[in-house]
Amino acid sequence: MNTTIDLNDTRALVDAYLEKICAARKQQAAKIGSRYIRFWDEIERSMLAGGKRIRPYLTMIGYGAVDKRVLPVAVAQELIHVAMLMHDDVIDQDDIRHGVANVQGAYREAYSPYLDPARARHYSYGAGILAGDALISEAYKMVYASGFGEHIQSQVIAQLHTSIYEVIGGELLDVEAAFITDEIFDPMQVYRYKTSSYSFIGPLLSGAYCGGVGTDEIERLRAFATAAGIAYQIQDDILGVFGDEASTGKSTLTDLREGKQTLLISYYQAAMDEADHDLFRYFGDEQATDEVLAQIKHAIRTSGALDKAKETAAAYFSDASEQLAQLEAGSRREALTELLERLKQRNA
Amino acid sequence: MNTTIDLNDTRALVDAYLEKICAARKQQAAKIGSRYIRFWDEIERSMLAGGKRIRPYLTMIGYGAVDKRVLPVAVAQELIHVAMLMHDDVIDQDDIRHGVANVQGAYREAYSPYLDPARARHYSYGAGILAGDALISEAYKMVYASGFGEHIQSQVIAQLHTSIYEVIGGELLDVEAAFITDEIFDPMQVYRYKTSSYSFIGPLLSGAYCGGVGTDEIERLRAFATAAGIAYQIQDDILGVFGDEASTGKSTLTDLREGKQTLLISYYQAAMDEADHDLFRYFGDEQATDEVLAQIKHAIRTSGALDKAKETAAAYFSDASEQLAQLEAGSRREALTELLERLKQRNA
Repeated sequence: MNTTIDLNDTRALVDAYLEKICAARKQQAAKIGSRYIRFWDEIERSMLAGGKRIRPYLTMIGYGAVDKRVLPVAVAQELIHVAMLMHDDVIDQDDIRHGVANVQGAYREAYSPYLDPARARHYSYGAGILAGDALISEAYKMVYASGFGEHIQSQVIAQLHTSIYEVIGGELLDVEAAFITDEIFDPMQVYRYKTSSYSFIGPLLSGAYCGGVGTDEIERLRAFATAAGIAYQIQDDILGVFGDEASTGKSTLTDLREGKQTLLISYYQAAMDEADHDLFRYFGDEQATDEVLAQIKHAIRTSGALDKAKETAAAYFSDASEQLAQLEAGSRREALTELLERLKQRNA
Repeated sequence: MNTTIDLNDTRALVDAYLEKICAARKQQAAKIGSRYIRFWDEIERSMLAGGKRIRPYLTMIGYGAVDKRVLPVAVAQELIHVAMLMHDDVIDQDDIRHGVANVQGAYREAYSPYLDPARARHYSYGAGILAGDALISEAYKMVYASGFGEHIQSQVIAQLHTSIYEVIGGELLDVEAAFITDEIFDPMQVYRYKTSSYSFIGPLLSGAYCGGVGTDEIERLRAFATAAGIAYQIQDDILGVFGDEASTGKSTLTDLREGKQTLLISYYQAAMDEADHDLFRYFGDEQATDEVLAQIKHAIRTSGALDKAKETAAAYFSDASEQLAQLEAGSRREALTELLERLKQRNA
């Protein structure tokens, strides 16, 4: 056992494990057909093109050490994450991930010589859907193969199932919020179920179950992960509109053009005057000019919504810190303290 | 234990179990949002709108009896099947299943008041994708919850994983065969991996593992299921073009218009003369008239390809019968004999 819990160590182990899975699947694919080998090649390429591996890292922290024994459970968290991103990219019609073509992007290119652009695009989504399906299946298999006893395994499986169930709900609400405007939408529900549940709670608790952590400490970890996840997502949405484009690598107008419903936007909507209402018609309008979106951005700032959202993020970060203070002393608490500090200070 | 293995008994148990799962998920969905309850409503509605439950039935046969103990494993086979159909329907852009709107069909309607038709359609695919994801997750959870010992459970999980891995490969090849025309395509690979593996081998062997069936008998069951699956699919593709439209409920020109690559078509391609080649340009042409497609249909028959495909199906049915004769006598063999007879004689 390694007593310091290091992100780089985790990433090296996870990436090597992901390569191992893909190598095995490519070998098996030969009997089905060369095009199925290619499919796994694209999965491997896009999965290893980037990703911070924060979820497996949380699993290692939950376990209390970077340890090969818990690696399959940690890898399962990442597989689910990659699968959901692949399906998210189909829904968002986004062919790029980590600065390179994702699976559907690669297939769109590959199908282009054979099909007109609309059909090439549609069938590329098929490849992206199937790739995500394959990885959900791998994730469950991984957890089963991890070799912990029956009691721990059933906790980890139940947690994985809950994470998937909740992230699907969060994703659905998030997608629908952009166009179903006649129902009340609470962005906190999306933060709780799309971010906290599968990105923080699931990975952290899965590791803790494997480490035999007791019930009271589990509940403190859950409270920490819930608050940290919400804080992270509020901040993420703020960075989406007010971040430094050079650091985040994306335009600060994209979320406004797509009509992304966030806490920031909720606060702004609550504070709008008549002029704001006129301007806000361009929120979520694909045809809106950069100028008008920049005006909305400016109005969000001057309305006080930006400050209010920052305060809410800070309050959740502070709640997460308080939860940390309740945890048993040791490498787990140290690693979470360091991680929380890093999340607070991130600018991309 | 019930000693006769009955399809209707199986269907009643499976449908009740599927309802139970959906009821539990709807109850949990309340905390996430009313729109997530609706999502599970649509899953339940479309899942219970039809389906013969042949896969769970095969699991019961493999087990040797219609028994509640093996029900979660049997239901898992159906959940994977429904999940793959949902994703298949997205890929095929097909909003109808069992004569009613599938999940994406229902969402397309629900999103129509909010979005232009193209976007309503695209986001309805999102709902279909998420619905399939949810059911893959449910299937794995089901198998873990089944309560068989560790050895049996690991066999059933491995089988489920193999089925999903192979059906994804078969589906990819099947989709690509319709437009990647410069690579050799062997329809038998699709029959083997898209049909035999997850529709016959997986369900039957999963039940047999739970029933503690010995290795030799498992291999005989596998040989039976492989042959029966291939025979079933060749026959299915023949019925697609030469079946009775009133019985099958679909036009016999659809597969020709979509350019579906089947063994029937492979045989025809091998037998084509120059006039056939001219005509065959309309195969897979969305704009092709009914007249020209009817001519292709006629040419397939006169070329001898139809008879040859029927002979091949008969040969695989006969292989399956021979495998049955090797099985241990008892209710398992009787039920499979009866099922095979029913499959041979089906006309829809």
